[in-house]
Amino acid sequence: MSSKRKGTLYERELFHMFWNSSWAAVRSAGSGSTPLPAPDILAGNKEKLLAIECKAIKSKSKHFKKEEVQQLKTFSETINANPIIAMRFDNIGWFFLDVNNLKENKNGNYTISLNHCKKEGIKFAELIGDYKQSKL
Amino acid sequence: MSSKRKGTLYERELFHMFWNSSWAAVRSAGSGSTPLPAPDILAGNKEKLLAIECKAIKSKSKHFKKEEVQQLKTFSETINANPIIAMRFDNIGWFFLDVNNLKENKNGNYTISLNHCKKEGIKFAELIGDYKQSKL
Repeated sequence: MSSKRKGTLYERELFHMFWNSSWAAVRSAGSGSTPLPAPDILAGNKEKLLAIECKAIKSKSKHFKKEEVQQLKTFSETINANPIIAMRFDNIGWFFLDVNNLKENKNGNYTISLNHCKKEGIKFAELIGDYKQSKL
Repeated sequence: MSSKRKGTLYERELFHMFWNSSWAAVRSAGSGSTPLPAPDILAGNKEKLLAIECKAIKSKSKHFKKEEVQQLKTFSETINANPIIAMRFDNIGWFFLDVNNLKENKNGNYTISLNHCKKEGIKFAELIGDYKQSKL
């Protein structure tokens, strides 16, 4: 499966997970065709709005350029959403990270590993639950 | 120009109007490919989130089925957004209507005319300004 096709497949999976939990969600169109920042998914309920960048990977870590992370932060600040990176590891599942808690590398970029996700990430049930009781 | 192409063109116009006004906006992907309700655009700033259905027309009025309007209301209630219908009349421009203020026809559907928009609609500057000072 191509990387792009896999990305779309799991974006849709996450999109449906929100709807199945009585949240509303939209997948963003043309995040590749405009220079303007666009998260993959915007999801919310009456209390929270989440701007989410999704990555589905086979390996155990993923690099993010500082510009990509900064765009998600800027978008989220503008629309008053929580900036979230959603990582899906093959055969393991989803973890969610608050972008504001990420630590940058020496070069200003970011590396998100499965180990980091297990320590600092939260699972979907926590993401859609009460933030006060989660790490976010 | 096909109706679909025209729709996309003016969705993008509105999308850029928000960005040019320091709001953030996303165009929704695949609103046709999922049975789940999806507005054409979600736009927001720190204070407001708008779920917007766009229509660009040549004629002077447009019919909306009650299901379409109800879906926009339901989506907006779930995500805590204001449900907005954005009407663009050729050679005249945009008007914005709060869906909660629409009056249904006898059959439960809706008709939105240019005259109604001129009376009850607001312009873009008002939409992105202070709600308290507008009709919304």
